[in-house]
Amino acid sequence: MPSFPKFSTRLDQLTGSVFEKFLPKMREKGMDLVRLHIGDSYLPPTYALPIAEDFMEKYPYFNRYANTLGVTELREALAEKITSDNNLPVNADQVMPTSGACSALNITALGLIEPGEEVLVLTPAWPFFFGMVKVAGGVPVEIPFYTLLYENPQLDIAEYLNRFITSKTVALYLNTPNNPSGKVLNRAQLTQVAEFAKQHQLWLISDEAYDGMTYDGCEHISIATFPDMFPQTLSVFTFSKMFMFAGLRLGYLAAEQSVLKNLNKMMVHQYYSPSTVGQYMMVEPVKTRHEWGARFTEECRQLRNLCTENLHIPHHTPEGTYFLFFSIKDFLNGRDYWQVIDQCLDIGVSVAPGSDFGKDFTQYIRLCFAGESPDRLKIAVERLNRVFST
Amino acid sequence: MPSFPKFSTRLDQLTGSVFEKFLPKMREKGMDLVRLHIGDSYLPPTYALPIAEDFMEKYPYFNRYANTLGVTELREALAEKITSDNNLPVNADQVMPTSGACSALNITALGLIEPGEEVLVLTPAWPFFFGMVKVAGGVPVEIPFYTLLYENPQLDIAEYLNRFITSKTVALYLNTPNNPSGKVLNRAQLTQVAEFAKQHQLWLISDEAYDGMTYDGCEHISIATFPDMFPQTLSVFTFSKMFMFAGLRLGYLAAEQSVLKNLNKMMVHQYYSPSTVGQYMMVEPVKTRHEWGARFTEECRQLRNLCTENLHIPHHTPEGTYFLFFSIKDFLNGRDYWQVIDQCLDIGVSVAPGSDFGKDFTQYIRLCFAGESPDRLKIAVERLNRVFST
Repeated sequence: MPSFPKFSTRLDQLTGSVFEKFLPKMREKGMDLVRLHIGDSYLPPTYALPIAEDFMEKYPYFNRYANTLGVTELREALAEKITSDNNLPVNADQVMPTSGACSALNITALGLIEPGEEVLVLTPAWPFFFGMVKVAGGVPVEIPFYTLLYENPQLDIAEYLNRFITSKTVALYLNTPNNPSGKVLNRAQLTQVAEFAKQHQLWLISDEAYDGMTYDGCEHISIATFPDMFPQTLSVFTFSKMFMFAGLRLGYLAAEQSVLKNLNKMMVHQYYSPSTVGQYMMVEPVKTRHEWGARFTEECRQLRNLCTENLHIPHHTPEGTYFLFFSIKDFLNGRDYWQVIDQCLDIGVSVAPGSDFGKDFTQYIRLCFAGESPDRLKIAVERLNRVFST
Repeated sequence: MPSFPKFSTRLDQLTGSVFEKFLPKMREKGMDLVRLHIGDSYLPPTYALPIAEDFMEKYPYFNRYANTLGVTELREALAEKITSDNNLPVNADQVMPTSGACSALNITALGLIEPGEEVLVLTPAWPFFFGMVKVAGGVPVEIPFYTLLYENPQLDIAEYLNRFITSKTVALYLNTPNNPSGKVLNRAQLTQVAEFAKQHQLWLISDEAYDGMTYDGCEHISIATFPDMFPQTLSVFTFSKMFMFAGLRLGYLAAEQSVLKNLNKMMVHQYYSPSTVGQYMMVEPVKTRHEWGARFTEECRQLRNLCTENLHIPHHTPEGTYFLFFSIKDFLNGRDYWQVIDQCLDIGVSVAPGSDFGKDFTQYIRLCFAGESPDRLKIAVERLNRVFST
């Protein structure tokens, strides 16, 4: 059951904007048109707001409902960024802001997966994706992958993934740079993933949340740039990581315009659109990213080194992201896994349990080495060393 | 099949936060705990932001992931507001911010409705709610209601609604003040709706987006305030209307804490949480609402009057909201309905087609009388008079 270019039938139950057919005429009428069709007031907020005056003057619609496909200024800035930084030539119609990468993945799961269909999930994987597939009625098929690539970079990926294909497989969930393992797939590895997806006509759900966060010359390559991959790829990005603004809940999805329009129906029924003011706020930072981005990556690299150089437990050096993910199996010393997690807390460090990232990682832990300042991180590593030497 | 207090089984597929069980210990450790369990950086954005310095100093976590149940400051302010303005005594744990009322309604629909179950939708109704019920696999049962109440305020509501109850009915969708009709249910009418919901053990989905926007002494009464109604009611509010900030995409849901925690799982899998910075931005406006709110309502009342006094087509004077909803059946003069909508556009006014609001309203139109300035609204009404006198 090859899936691309099929969508889930639940999208058929949703109607798009009734105004869409009138849009050409509405644009043509321009300022003469008195717009009374949307439930929104022309009045700006009459209370004090902690937003700069010149910003509100520049974007007078900051407080109003936006085009659900995104505000033009941001889509254009993002199209330039994706074209230039990700080597993926897209136009503004091929980018849609969403409420975080989270929402981009959710509407993708609901938009593509029918009940009973299977999604290949390369693990360890971002915990919420499993639930998203299940809510869509789908079955996440867990495939241990990223940690395996550290140990065997020459893995015959196509042969390996082929073992998990069934007649119900419709999509593949890829996440590079990978949360939690920090693995960054190289061109040869991505070539094999792309060929596999094309061979089986699978939708490729490409979670690129850690775009820009790679170290030691590792390069993040968007899989949609491989030959013929763009039409069947959903490329998911976020402002939560490199842009240090998780609290804005803004991300974006790059795909064919027809795909975005279809998934947009799901988004509109969930929360209408991401924040208008949040979208406008990110226009300039996207344009100036090369001025400040490198400093963030360098700081993360130093935090990573502080961590890897001082932690007395074997681990693979993360090639990207701000996570360290390692097995504590040999350091349990007879203790129960959860007992150790609890001991970490007792000694003053909170870590994420590996079981969240897939059934094969119940004896791993993940720590975010950018979560606290260098001084605090150093204390945390010392504390962890004590727990694991016990 | 009485539904309350049952949730949909799709929620069972979602796990809550793995950290929840550790929260008491984490709170206890306080500042000593080095928090490396969440994927978030300690660094504030290093690019310029159009946000006031003192705001960012006051809320240093403005850019980070928040507790998905909401930031404490906003939940406390909202609990005070709901207790005081809506006469519904709730505490902060009984309020959850969401990405607009839209999301509150969506996670409610997905959280309560099983495939094949029926939801009574009083019409005319907000268009997106139909799709939300359908995506949950449910069947929206349309019941002409609000326009009927204008004509027959003494309607025997319980007897009337009883006609639509089946063994599959699980919930009732109420929206007062009503979009699009502007109808505001009075205490006697709401008493009947509440008794009906209790008698049949229906979840009451109470869309109160137009809370605060009533005129001529009409009062908005939250149905959750009726005896024993709070446990089975989901009260939905927004910052998009009275707070004039649709572009923030922020709303909130008031319900029993256990209900919120359950629906929170769905929200977290859709978009994690509403914007942290947006939540902090609304703390002060909630507290100062009595200083600026009346001016907004008075402006809307004047716009309503400008509209109703000048429009040459029979209509019911809206008791709340910023909408005028009326039948153009007798003014088609042989023209097709859509042809008239198109003529409105040609003459320079965009209106919303009634068909969006339910199958019984295909010859109505809705206009938002606060959508444009008084001068522009006056021009629009004159233009509409011309179309309808043709």
